Amino acid sequence: MAQKPSIPKGTRDFGPQEMARRNYIFDTIRSVYALYGFQQIETPAMENLSTLMGKYGEEGDKLLFKILDSGDFLRGLDPSMFCEGGTPKLAACLCEKGLRYDLTVPFARFVVQHRDELTLPFRRFQIQPVWRADRPQKGRYREFYQCDADVVGSDSLLNEVELMQIVDEVFRRFGIRVCIKINNRKILTGIAEMIGQADKIVDITVAIDKLDKIGLEAVNAELAENGIPNEAIEKLQPIIKLSGSNEEKMQTMRKFFGTESSTTPSCQAGECLRSDIGIRGCDEIEFVLNTLGSVVGGLSAEVQFDLTLARGLNYYTGCIFEVKALDVEIGSITGGGRYDNLTGIFGMPGLSGVGISFGADRIYDVLNQLDLYPKEVSTTTELLFVNFGDAETAYSLPAVAAVRKAGIRAEIYPDASKMKKQMAYANARSIPFVAIAGETEMAEGKFTLKDMTTGEQTVVTTEEMIAKVQA
Amino acid sequence: MAQKPSIPKGTRDFGPQEMARRNYIFDTIRSVYALYGFQQIETPAMENLSTLMGKYGEEGDKLLFKILDSGDFLRGLDPSMFCEGGTPKLAACLCEKGLRYDLTVPFARFVVQHRDELTLPFRRFQIQPVWRADRPQKGRYREFYQCDADVVGSDSLLNEVELMQIVDEVFRRFGIRVCIKINNRKILTGIAEMIGQADKIVDITVAIDKLDKIGLEAVNAELAENGIPNEAIEKLQPIIKLSGSNEEKMQTMRKFFGTESSTTPSCQAGECLRSDIGIRGCDEIEFVLNTLGSVVGGLSAEVQFDLTLARGLNYYTGCIFEVKALDVEIGSITGGGRYDNLTGIFGMPGLSGVGISFGADRIYDVLNQLDLYPKEVSTTTELLFVNFGDAETAYSLPAVAAVRKAGIRAEIYPDASKMKKQMAYANARSIPFVAIAGETEMAEGKFTLKDMTTGEQTVVTTEEMIAKVQA
Repeated sequence: MAQKPSIPKGTRDFGPQEMARRNYIFDTIRSVYALYGFQQIETPAMENLSTLMGKYGEEGDKLLFKILDSGDFLRGLDPSMFCEGGTPKLAACLCEKGLRYDLTVPFARFVVQHRDELTLPFRRFQIQPVWRADRPQKGRYREFYQCDADVVGSDSLLNEVELMQIVDEVFRRFGIRVCIKINNRKILTGIAEMIGQADKIVDITVAIDKLDKIGLEAVNAELAENGIPNEAIEKLQPIIKLSGSNEEKMQTMRKFFGTESSTTPSCQAGECLRSDIGIRGCDEIEFVLNTLGSVVGGLSAEVQFDLTLARGLNYYTGCIFEVKALDVEIGSITGGGRYDNLTGIFGMPGLSGVGISFGADRIYDVLNQLDLYPKEVSTTTELLFVNFGDAETAYSLPAVAAVRKAGIRAEIYPDASKMKKQMAYANARSIPFVAIAGETEMAEGKFTLKDMTTGEQTVVTTEEMIAKVQA
Repeated sequence: MAQKPSIPKGTRDFGPQEMARRNYIFDTIRSVYALYGFQQIETPAMENLSTLMGKYGEEGDKLLFKILDSGDFLRGLDPSMFCEGGTPKLAACLCEKGLRYDLTVPFARFVVQHRDELTLPFRRFQIQPVWRADRPQKGRYREFYQCDADVVGSDSLLNEVELMQIVDEVFRRFGIRVCIKINNRKILTGIAEMIGQADKIVDITVAIDKLDKIGLEAVNAELAENGIPNEAIEKLQPIIKLSGSNEEKMQTMRKFFGTESSTTPSCQAGECLRSDIGIRGCDEIEFVLNTLGSVVGGLSAEVQFDLTLARGLNYYTGCIFEVKALDVEIGSITGGGRYDNLTGIFGMPGLSGVGISFGADRIYDVLNQLDLYPKEVSTTTELLFVNFGDAETAYSLPAVAAVRKAGIRAEIYPDASKMKKQMAYANARSIPFVAIAGETEMAEGKFTLKDMTTGEQTVVTTEEMIAKVQA
């Protein structure tokens, strides 16, 4: 036999069991999104490269899968361009289209393109694959699904509240115990403002994040190494040591931001006595936490204010959240936040929004590791009719139709193969019931129904068979 | 504002209403497939070009979307190759991967690659988009979905019977009146054999197909123009004029195939007195029709033996079927047939199968034209809570949570905008119920529920509201 065919690296085939599990994940997320009034859209796999290029940074441009133009793709190109090797610039000449890299940019494009048909605020969700020419590695694929929900055209913090309720409800349904971490970009901006180190905010959060692992001394040393002056590090101490309940942390933050000071203007010569933006960040987080707690009555998951949460800082402008599974060692399994100006890149300014994205592939890994799939997550055939030949088949087919009409997933073995082969098929497919009709059963108008789990056999009518399989 | 962004020609965005309708189509097909014991698989959007090239003919190779290799895609290429323009050969050097063109070749690749894990017969279904660089035109897209089911590893005609039951059940559920046409490749081969014109079978079926439009004289003239000798045309007359019930047609065919002759050998010097393969074709069709009719008890749709049905002749080897909508002028909306040697192209010979493919995009057009969507095909929000400000929101949120817990798709307007704007939002979104809570309602612990269809307003408790919306 010739060499086995294969699929491109970083891509996957999904067999029946994997599909049943993945459908369970997508269906769960989809139905919770719908319960909260989000509406599904889909966009094409291919977008114009002009839509995609320059949206994900220089590195992102390289990771876009580009589609060679059809027909004479060299048409009109200067041959000297080929001397420099396969550069991104040349790629852009050979290719007009690329594969979707995420769901956010296509969504922004969708909103701008269809703005006359949309009613704001627009609550959309989208569950589709995306493609990235990343180096494949364990748990990272070149084709994977994203499951995004966003509200655009509303600044209200109620949207943040509802998205956190959605996150909570989805993981409650999955049975995955999680902690939801929340932070706010404005708090990080406020910290940088208070110590006059606006460009160092990433270094600061990275260093603080190591407190548990390396201790306070080492954190302070790292901050100094990163060029943060001693006075600033001194000022940062209450923040590095930030601990306690969310309420206690918030109190510390407010004090740090100088709520007690009423000096106006609050900043002078790079030194601040008060950070209004920091205080606004605290207000926002407290509104979300209070509404979730006292108004809605709390979530199943713990919500934790975490200052070190700093995802996609250049993109987010308000609340940021991330979800950690408690019982499995794995990165963030869901994340999101508030952003301004989603559609500015396409010439439509002023549209802010907030969104979340479930990491379907990681959720799949968690559910597998904890074996949390409900028993119903299977679309396997429930009942197989054995085939002994033409006469027996003619006798069985009306019963096959009847059980299907009752909603039972059923099949009749298509060939009159040996009984052993047919039973092996039932076993390999994990089919729980087998119906057998030979001369005796046909004379009585009945079937022998074998329960493949217990081995028990009973002689039944079609109606009794339906009742037994459905039980 | 900058120029509106757009999407590649031949591709589509799907908004919320389109998505609801498309999900209804896919869900219906999916659940019928599952009821018949078919198991879902998915394959990657990208396949190796070595898997795809040469499988769809020269024209097909051109219509494959090819993906430019990442990194230095010119690496190791001879610059002189670029002098001949963008040829397919050069494309194959720049690209290792291409987008899936159909679901059949990826399925064949899947079966060969995973043959050690599969139990035969394997009943699989697959619902995924495919991409073709075809010239876009009305009803033809560059990205569209296929919905295929196949059984491989079984020669039994019961598979044909079940696939036709599936077709019938799917269109019964959609409420689309259809006619299922059936033919058999062996019958066509038999005809060619009987008149000694094996290479003319396509010309013959095309000419016969015009009988109703152009009349017998013209059909015979066309046959002659195509180089078919007069004796052969003479012999073909009963077939050109074939009419009556399926039984009558079958009788004519059997007579044509010389069932009354028992001469052996049946063929001599290119002239045949009997066609065994033609008779086998008749046997197969009769088995399928009889089993569907007398054994299963008939289908909702009419099944019609149609000699002019000649889809994909090079591919199919046994029964062929096609579905026509009765109430809309549109091409075939579903088709399929029996093929041999699905996996031979990947070095695994001897695996035959039979399959069908629903044309989701055309079914969508038919359902739209006939307005056949059930009322439930909508995932629109059922209940909108009006937002008058913080106090009213705090009052409303527990009720929002309660109605969602009852399974009602609900949202609260996120901003305390003017009442008029919020009601306009409800109207634009076609939300059927709006809940309002001002001072009066809050004092009573109730809501005013407005039925947006009738305009009727009632003051209700949360429980009453749930009952009214669910009613």
